[in-house]
Amino acid sequence: MPQTDQPASAFDTATAVTRTEGGVLTTELDPGWDVGGGILNGGYLLSIAARAAVLESPHPHPVALSASYLRAPAAGRASLTVVPGPAGRTLAHSQVVLADDAGPAITVQATTAVLGDEPSAVAAVPPAVAPVGQCLSIAEHAHLAPPEIQVPGLVRRIDVRLDPASAGWALGQPGEEPVLRAWLRFTDEREPDPLALVAFADALPPTSWALGRFGWAPTVQLQVLVRALPAPGWCLVEARAGEIAGGWLDEDYRIWDSTGRLVAQSRQLARAPR
Amino acid sequence: MPQTDQPASAFDTATAVTRTEGGVLTTELDPGWDVGGGILNGGYLLSIAARAAVLESPHPHPVALSASYLRAPAAGRASLTVVPGPAGRTLAHSQVVLADDAGPAITVQATTAVLGDEPSAVAAVPPAVAPVGQCLSIAEHAHLAPPEIQVPGLVRRIDVRLDPASAGWALGQPGEEPVLRAWLRFTDEREPDPLALVAFADALPPTSWALGRFGWAPTVQLQVLVRALPAPGWCLVEARAGEIAGGWLDEDYRIWDSTGRLVAQSRQLARAPR
Repeated sequence: MPQTDQPASAFDTATAVTRTEGGVLTTELDPGWDVGGGILNGGYLLSIAARAAVLESPHPHPVALSASYLRAPAAGRASLTVVPGPAGRTLAHSQVVLADDAGPAITVQATTAVLGDEPSAVAAVPPAVAPVGQCLSIAEHAHLAPPEIQVPGLVRRIDVRLDPASAGWALGQPGEEPVLRAWLRFTDEREPDPLALVAFADALPPTSWALGRFGWAPTVQLQVLVRALPAPGWCLVEARAGEIAGGWLDEDYRIWDSTGRLVAQSRQLARAPR
Repeated sequence: MPQTDQPASAFDTATAVTRTEGGVLTTELDPGWDVGGGILNGGYLLSIAARAAVLESPHPHPVALSASYLRAPAAGRASLTVVPGPAGRTLAHSQVVLADDAGPAITVQATTAVLGDEPSAVAAVPPAVAPVGQCLSIAEHAHLAPPEIQVPGLVRRIDVRLDPASAGWALGQPGEEPVLRAWLRFTDEREPDPLALVAFADALPPTSWALGRFGWAPTVQLQVLVRALPAPGWCLVEARAGEIAGGWLDEDYRIWDSTGRLVAQSRQLARAPR
């Protein structure tokens, strides 16, 4: 939770982890961070697990998280169990389980460390995209969505501005590449930090939507790497599917901060929309 | 273990998992699969965990594995503990811990399923490389290695043929891109399968070697996705670092089979060589 007089951001409130008197970590899963049909966003859930991992770690930042999505948890009270692993001066390992009344929903292998802002020896260069003001706001254009697309709560929490070059699908003109590029920030302008990057790493629609194949692509396993502390401002996200075959697809996210520095990347295996 | 009259391959022998009378799964970690200094290769260790996950699963193939490398285990007897998670008709989850006498060495989140050979809807195209016969055999050229490079046992188990365009570093002429491309197969010509792909997904030297920065890059977290059953023959592997900064690097592997189909991909976060 913020340490200032500022009102708590929607993200910090929705991902707050509390220790009960018995020492158990709990959270209140917010139904507003859904991707449609009452299904909570995978990046949102993972950022809560990351917050719990950091709470129980000697180090302040999540640097590597790998989550298996076992089942979709219900909104409301959930518990977080953190089993610490080896911890050293540079990094610490742990395992986190987020469970609701029906049992474990996601299991996470977490590595925490101290992130800095050292210059890159080899830098991942951001793609060329239109400036934010020339991009398409998903929230503002939600009324244009094809009827089979249910506009989820997530787009009211995270402000997504699609680069026109990868937004044809949203205007009835799907493209040929499974790639989405967008500027992201929290709608209430809370600045990005490592926990926010974890949420951003699964915040776009399935990349198969760029091809005009609308449908839910449930995440099976998601790995997020946080590479540096992000500067304030908009983050640029590129999501790309590499291979879609046999009912499965992979999605890679790369996230740059407002200075053009790579600050996070993710890869997930998901079930392909039919 | 093979079901035929053929002698067991080195890989199948070195990754064999046995159930003791008490029901415990054990393996004998083979010191020959090292990367130098007695450190066993991370892909080798992960393929053993994958074998254990499959043994305890209703499904035959590993499709997603995420491993945290807690510490380097010693060669010799090790145990494998598999905790099954939800299992359905399409896929099953589990957690695997590989431990030696000193405690847990790697923890793995595993997803198993049935892989097929359905055609790709979107295909990752392999890079252009020289044919195997024009590539540089690491094993045959080990005597040319710079004195600071200790030639490990792994290069005698897996036959690595470096594409000349990414092999300059091995001949004293480092390049400017942290990329390695090579043909791989087991030295005893055991054909590839999903377990072999898991081992191949961490089988090349650190990509920073392509830049002439020799040194060990210990894996912190490795995710391997197996995407299809590989055809017999050589596999083509491309390993690429995206960002090297702040003492960390990421490495992506993509593996194509002899027909040019993407069959596996991996991403790891490692500590950068100094």
